Amino acid sequence: MSAALVVGASGGIGSAIVAGLLARDAHEVVVAACREPAASEALTKLANAHPQRLLTLALDVTDPASLADAAARLAGRVNTLTMIINCAGVLQAGALQPERRLSEVDAAALVESFRVNALGALLVAQAFAPLLDREARSVLANLSARVGSIGDNRLGGWYAYRASKAAQNMFTRNLAIELARRHRGLICVALHPGTVDTGLSRPFQARVPPERLFTPARAARQLLGVIDALGPGDNGGFFAWDGSPVPW
Amino acid sequence: MSAALVVGASGGIGSAIVAGLLARDAHEVVVAACREPAASEALTKLANAHPQRLLTLALDVTDPASLADAAARLAGRVNTLTMIINCAGVLQAGALQPERRLSEVDAAALVESFRVNALGALLVAQAFAPLLDREARSVLANLSARVGSIGDNRLGGWYAYRASKAAQNMFTRNLAIELARRHRGLICVALHPGTVDTGLSRPFQARVPPERLFTPARAARQLLGVIDALGPGDNGGFFAWDGSPVPW
Repeated sequence: MSAALVVGASGGIGSAIVAGLLARDAHEVVVAACREPAASEALTKLANAHPQRLLTLALDVTDPASLADAAARLAGRVNTLTMIINCAGVLQAGALQPERRLSEVDAAALVESFRVNALGALLVAQAFAPLLDREARSVLANLSARVGSIGDNRLGGWYAYRASKAAQNMFTRNLAIELARRHRGLICVALHPGTVDTGLSRPFQARVPPERLFTPARAARQLLGVIDALGPGDNGGFFAWDGSPVPW
Repeated sequence: MSAALVVGASGGIGSAIVAGLLARDAHEVVVAACREPAASEALTKLANAHPQRLLTLALDVTDPASLADAAARLAGRVNTLTMIINCAGVLQAGALQPERRLSEVDAAALVESFRVNALGALLVAQAFAPLLDREARSVLANLSARVGSIGDNRLGGWYAYRASKAAQNMFTRNLAIELARRHRGLICVALHPGTVDTGLSRPFQARVPPERLFTPARAARQLLGVIDALGPGDNGGFFAWDGSPVPW
């Protein structure tokens, strides 16, 4: 029984990807993981509509024990994973705000951003990679962001978010190298979803042209399209919503 | 009175850079900063040999309050800085060890690596950038590492160190953009020192050809040579010990 795991499944992009996977038949089971699946209206609706195909899984991406426990629970319910998409991420929360300038950098908030956006993606891979199929074409995708590109950085600011995504990109690259040795059909990539109309981007949408502000459903469709088109040579790459490569 | 600040000055490369700057006359004062300057034999010798030119400064790069205090003390003793070189970094310490594989990744050790190597470099810049000269040619250099290059990563492993240096590189790039607006002669760069015969690299020198294992004195000479040759167009770049660019 082949399954897909979506982490950060209660977020705008995450829940749209879960819905997108349920609308296709590539995976018999779709696993929607987040801190409190039952508290998510979107996931509850999807679970009611697809009681046989949607599994929910409670976990905290910053807590290795919680992830190990979730992976053990999942191992009893699915045979192998052929897709892991990690959408968990934070741009602002409490003291963590996108910094307009150096003087606004807050050490504790910066560490928290790193824990969720970078460490979280790595710990998810550490916990769930053992469930990945050993032979079949499989994809591990981490939602990154173009602002996490060092080479493409022309505006500065957003210190915590930018650096946490750059660190996450390094983790994705490391995973691509290490996991491909054991999982011969695996392709690990970082993905830039574009600007999506979710809570995360809402305070920053003013200067985004309407045709470049994607609905979550459209963003999910585009990202799944990019994932569908990935070949073995794309392992370890960084791609935007339209399939174009993004510099590191 | 123009001064150079070296942070992480008790380390192998840091103390060699302090000695290198004292052997030149470009800076009237050289400030050697680390957690416990008095505990460093190398700095004590240099202070005895250059009592008029070497200032020591106690600080902890992971502690914003300690840095603010150190910057306030320094502001009373020098007029402007025209050089900041940050050499503070950690590869292994206690539970933090260069991970050979994903299963060895330890969440707490990984956060500690990020705090010293990435956050530390940013907090140093936050505390001391206000002392940088507003007009004169000045350099802010962060010691990075080629293993912190995402694009150049072919071997994997070393998760914590690699990602913390990638995050540090993003900070350097952000600083290059933001600080250049206020400090018109400033050039911010990330530097790869090569493999240097210090405590940090000692466990990993076995496969380094002798002619590519640099003494700290040679590494310092090479890095200062790269810094001397930097032009305004190099602001925001990443350079190796021989001046060649390193990909992000």
